[in-house]
Amino acid sequence: MIDLRSDTVTRPTAAMLEAMFRAPVGDDVYEEDPTVRDLEQECARRFGMEAGLFCPSGTMTNQIAIKGHTEPLSEVICEQTSHIYLWEVGGIAFHSGASVALLAGDRGRVTAQQVAAAIRSENVHYPTTRLISLENTHNRGGGSCYDWATLEEIAALAKRQGIPLHLDGARIFNALVATGQRSEDYGQLFDTISICLSKGLGTPVGSVLVGSAAFIHKCKRIRKVMGGGWRQAGYLAAAGLYALENHVARLADDHRRAKQLAEALAEAPYVDFVLPAETNLVIFRLKDGLTEDQFLAHLAKNDIKASAFGPQMVRFVTHLDVDDAGIAQVLAALQTVAA
Amino acid sequence: MIDLRSDTVTRPTAAMLEAMFRAPVGDDVYEEDPTVRDLEQECARRFGMEAGLFCPSGTMTNQIAIKGHTEPLSEVICEQTSHIYLWEVGGIAFHSGASVALLAGDRGRVTAQQVAAAIRSENVHYPTTRLISLENTHNRGGGSCYDWATLEEIAALAKRQGIPLHLDGARIFNALVATGQRSEDYGQLFDTISICLSKGLGTPVGSVLVGSAAFIHKCKRIRKVMGGGWRQAGYLAAAGLYALENHVARLADDHRRAKQLAEALAEAPYVDFVLPAETNLVIFRLKDGLTEDQFLAHLAKNDIKASAFGPQMVRFVTHLDVDDAGIAQVLAALQTVAA
Amino acid sequence: MIDLRSDTVTRPTAAMLEAMFRAPVGDDVYEEDPTVRDLEQECARRFGMEAGLFCPSGTMTNQIAIKGHTEPLSEVICEQTSHIYLWEVGGIAFHSGASVALLAGDRGRVTAQQVAAAIRSENVHYPTTRLISLENTHNRGGGSCYDWATLEEIAALAKRQGIPLHLDGARIFNALVATGQRSEDYGQLFDTISICLSKGLGTPVGSVLVGSAAFIHKCKRIRKVMGGGWRQAGYLAAAGLYALENHVARLADDHRRAKQLAEALAEAPYVDFVLPAETNLVIFRLKDGLTEDQFLAHLAKNDIKASAFGPQMVRFVTHLDVDDAGIAQVLAALQTVAA
Amino acid sequence: MIDLRSDTVTRPTAAMLEAMFRAPVGDDVYEEDPTVRDLEQECARRFGMEAGLFCPSGTMTNQIAIKGHTEPLSEVICEQTSHIYLWEVGGIAFHSGASVALLAGDRGRVTAQQVAAAIRSENVHYPTTRLISLENTHNRGGGSCYDWATLEEIAALAKRQGIPLHLDGARIFNALVATGQRSEDYGQLFDTISICLSKGLGTPVGSVLVGSAAFIHKCKRIRKVMGGGWRQAGYLAAAGLYALENHVARLADDHRRAKQLAEALAEAPYVDFVLPAETNLVIFRLKDGLTEDQFLAHLAKNDIKASAFGPQMVRFVTHLDVDDAGIAQVLAALQTVAA
Repeated sequence: MIDLRSDTVTRPTAAMLEAMFRAPVGDDVYEEDPTVRDLEQECARRFGMEAGLFCPSGTMTNQIAIKGHTEPLSEVICEQTSHIYLWEVGGIAFHSGASVALLAGDRGRVTAQQVAAAIRSENVHYPTTRLISLENTHNRGGGSCYDWATLEEIAALAKRQGIPLHLDGARIFNALVATGQRSEDYGQLFDTISICLSKGLGTPVGSVLVGSAAFIHKCKRIRKVMGGGWRQAGYLAAAGLYALENHVARLADDHRRAKQLAEALAEAPYVDFVLPAETNLVIFRLKDGLTEDQFLAHLAKNDIKASAFGPQMVRFVTHLDVDDAGIAQVLAALQTVAA
Repeated sequence: MIDLRSDTVTRPTAAMLEAMFRAPVGDDVYEEDPTVRDLEQECARRFGMEAGLFCPSGTMTNQIAIKGHTEPLSEVICEQTSHIYLWEVGGIAFHSGASVALLAGDRGRVTAQQVAAAIRSENVHYPTTRLISLENTHNRGGGSCYDWATLEEIAALAKRQGIPLHLDGARIFNALVATGQRSEDYGQLFDTISICLSKGLGTPVGSVLVGSAAFIHKCKRIRKVMGGGWRQAGYLAAAGLYALENHVARLADDHRRAKQLAEALAEAPYVDFVLPAETNLVIFRLKDGLTEDQFLAHLAKNDIKASAFGPQMVRFVTHLDVDDAGIAQVLAALQTVAA
Repeated sequence: MIDLRSDTVTRPTAAMLEAMFRAPVGDDVYEEDPTVRDLEQECARRFGMEAGLFCPSGTMTNQIAIKGHTEPLSEVICEQTSHIYLWEVGGIAFHSGASVALLAGDRGRVTAQQVAAAIRSENVHYPTTRLISLENTHNRGGGSCYDWATLEEIAALAKRQGIPLHLDGARIFNALVATGQRSEDYGQLFDTISICLSKGLGTPVGSVLVGSAAFIHKCKRIRKVMGGGWRQAGYLAAAGLYALENHVARLADDHRRAKQLAEALAEAPYVDFVLPAETNLVIFRLKDGLTEDQFLAHLAKNDIKASAFGPQMVRFVTHLDVDDAGIAQVLAALQTVAA
Repeated sequence: MIDLRSDTVTRPTAAMLEAMFRAPVGDDVYEEDPTVRDLEQECARRFGMEAGLFCPSGTMTNQIAIKGHTEPLSEVICEQTSHIYLWEVGGIAFHSGASVALLAGDRGRVTAQQVAAAIRSENVHYPTTRLISLENTHNRGGGSCYDWATLEEIAALAKRQGIPLHLDGARIFNALVATGQRSEDYGQLFDTISICLSKGLGTPVGSVLVGSAAFIHKCKRIRKVMGGGWRQAGYLAAAGLYALENHVARLADDHRRAKQLAEALAEAPYVDFVLPAETNLVIFRLKDGLTEDQFLAHLAKNDIKASAFGPQMVRFVTHLDVDDAGIAQVLAALQTVAA
């Protein structure tokens, strides 16, 4: 079965599993798990930050960061299709009691001008803008990447206004590999970054929030109340350390394979359009007459899974568990879609 | 001084004040204020509802309704410039922990198609759509009115989907007078309506939420926790009863005067555009070269106040305390704006 | 009808009513109501504070203060029968997401030692103690008054620990009159005080929160989101100004009458015990064999109302609308309770 | 090093570790992890429930259950030293906006009479009692166990009143082993049970919430918003399955060892009192003159760790990683405490 639904479906390689197995562990609520500590420090170091916090999911790292940066009667600026707004169960309102200002980005990417216009002025009728949150790569934008100049402009605006800047880096390694940007430089621009290890990096479970030592200290209590205070999590952290060492550079293969799929789709007679495949996500629209359900049913008959992504929309995701042979199988199946 | 900033600035007439003065009162927390009870019943009756709840502000009636209809992990569908989202301090998130789905309306008015597309499907990643909220007239849309067919379509959709429908009727009487729609019919379409008495109707303080008896009963506890459980509020309620009797039909005068202002502005060389003046609000954009602050300063020199409404944008509001002489004074001042 | 249920049931005197309807008013959301401003300043001045905020109820002033002093993951220390915990619909959790540490006071009054023991230490499992709240007089404690030394000790502890100190002064004027303490001195001890005008002072509606200018400025936005941003509230504020001038000293009469009732009850064969009547509240327990409902039914037959206050418990409240003749009527009725 | 601080500090045995890394896994957000599913079903089956939900911590399972059973303006009845109130960072208020009614139990155990007295009547001033939560064994009560008759009485009351009943079963297996109660019977009394696998059972990470299928379905969305939607969690679930099979009966050894420690402490001249050691927790008070810090320092010199548990209070916890030799080492150290 070729599973293109998401890069979250990967299973650990034998080598990763062996690394997990051998990890020294301790009670992380007492801050005594050495492998968790190593992972948190390694993530912080890589992104030019002081400290890290290992959590069960990217939703948790994002929502902890939002909670840590805001208080009730705050407003968060983000893109209207961003994961934190669209797919985290309304967590911004639920956890933080914060309102949202939603921008319409270019494949999810917003500009400093858009952000500036959304900052609320001082007025008794208004919440206070307390956070700007970006997503890179942008999932709903088809894995689109920010260019560095835009990030710098937004960060400069945020600093001038005294508003923290958060990055949902669910697929930040894909962005780094695709653009050649350096992870260390990100710490100069962002106050916090949520880094996911269980997507392209292929670990079973876990995300790390990185930021200043003071902010991460504050976040430990938020993680605790959210139920993220786990014990001997070092087994999972070991997978993260292994992946950082061994699974980053290979993301280029996922990107190459995504491009192959995108090119084939662009030429398929039943495809309306394909978003540019900058990284490992391929989002495309089927022409009217072929529904997403019919299309997915055809793939299923060819032992391929993918995700419906709205009316007529489909998403393919390449990852560690799909190799060139798998891609060939998908390409063949794309040839046999009935008119 | 001619005050066009808002229809909230009116002071009671002598006759209204006398009605207030003579009102029988009691402790409304014990449900023993006869004048409050009369006002609540009269509002309910007029809008074809079972019960009413008298509150200190329209923000309170709106936010109580939103809280009553939703629970945390809900989502509210509303227009992106609606008062409940934009000007109630992020109260949807603060009080209700609810997310918002924001529609881009035509001068604030949305269609059933737009609402239908915003209803969230069942998915563990999504909040649940639990409320649709409209605003009529729409403030930010320049006092625009919904036509009845659109309201019927949205209400039919809401009923099919089992989603409550709320109306922010801050200026519902303006809509009724402008369109000839009947207030009694509104109860057929909406689950709850927030009716403001201190805008066009000219009372000092108060709004009434109307709905089913069961829903209003539930809302009393929400009003209590929000601090809206007041005591001998009958003095204020009496103003509302007086206004319902005496200040509704006269809104046509406010609308006629708003049209006069809009026509003059449409011809002014320094005005970029004026939104259609359907009721008592006139929203217009100044051409580049004349800022809203410069324009308001010119008005102030002529003893006229108005509101800045965004970059280059200004809002005029006609009301009980601006008569034809006042309008003439404004029209004269509009002639003398320097290039 | 003699109504001893609460001091909230009073109706304005003719003189108060006249003061109300002569009051100059304006739109208080624009901060333009001169009478509201006068009341806020007068309350602040009397209690040695910088600023005040006029609100529709004591629940609102208390809950705004709690919200202003805390943030989610905070804990509030208060007495286990305090109004803010017991009778404000769980508002501490609802509005502020804050936990409570509940102390067992002596008729509602707590000691500095009790407060000190309840302050949470720094620990990832704990909320942070962010507010200490007292109530004076204490309603559930039978209108009991704090002595000044205890207030000073608690205030000194709060200052040392950097924890704000709030006073629910729903009946603070009763405490002042009964103890001879000076209102001006309260501002030295407390960060905020909620002052109710519609209890013993006899106004129809309203409470004032007093505190520092910066804190009250912050609270305006909280009042707004709670729906307490009202318009021409000056009519109600005028009643407050009148009451401050004319209805404070006369509270001594209410206290004298409460003592009369308490003495009679203490000797009644059907009464188990009476709490010391320090001010205008008389709380007593009926002996088994006479239920509170039977007792209240007897009073009702004699045109007297009172409140059940738990199993076998009853509360009498003296106030502006109960004179010596009324007390005589009650005393007579107490004589004729059947065995 | 003998670590008596908590039963959370255990590390997996070799056999458990082998079971973990042979486990088949899948993406649990897609509900495709077979080992997670097996664990959830096994826990549900054992406790006579329909369904289970595997989460990263007992705080998460407790807080999800509380959120699922309540809505804002609710109140939760629990004991004043219960874990959900005292040690979960005020999560009841934070997540659920719910108030608490705190009972004073007998070593943490409450009676049906106490619960009945705490249920709020219908009143606009009150939150609504929406949940009763018990803890068995009770941590702060020294691992005390409920007798079955009390549980039945409370459950009968809860059913009569229509109020859900939750059990914090962080150490429920200790209670089962100590009392001989049958886990299957618990499903008859409780609506939900939080079962911890990483305390006495010795797994690295995880708790399971069990309840009805409909309730657990609802909880999946709450888990998601809290960030507990993890991916290939089967490795951790496998440890739970192993522990259910192999680590329950052996809890009797921990209980025997706890009794040994309690007996020695009861005779020690520096100990004020020891709570009855019914299970694996030993809580005791040091006589004045020996502080908890001095005592812990003495233990540390003997390579023993334990927890301070309040002024003069200390807690010992026996578990999988403390054998008879370890207990002997502790007993020896207890002999050499200086006067």
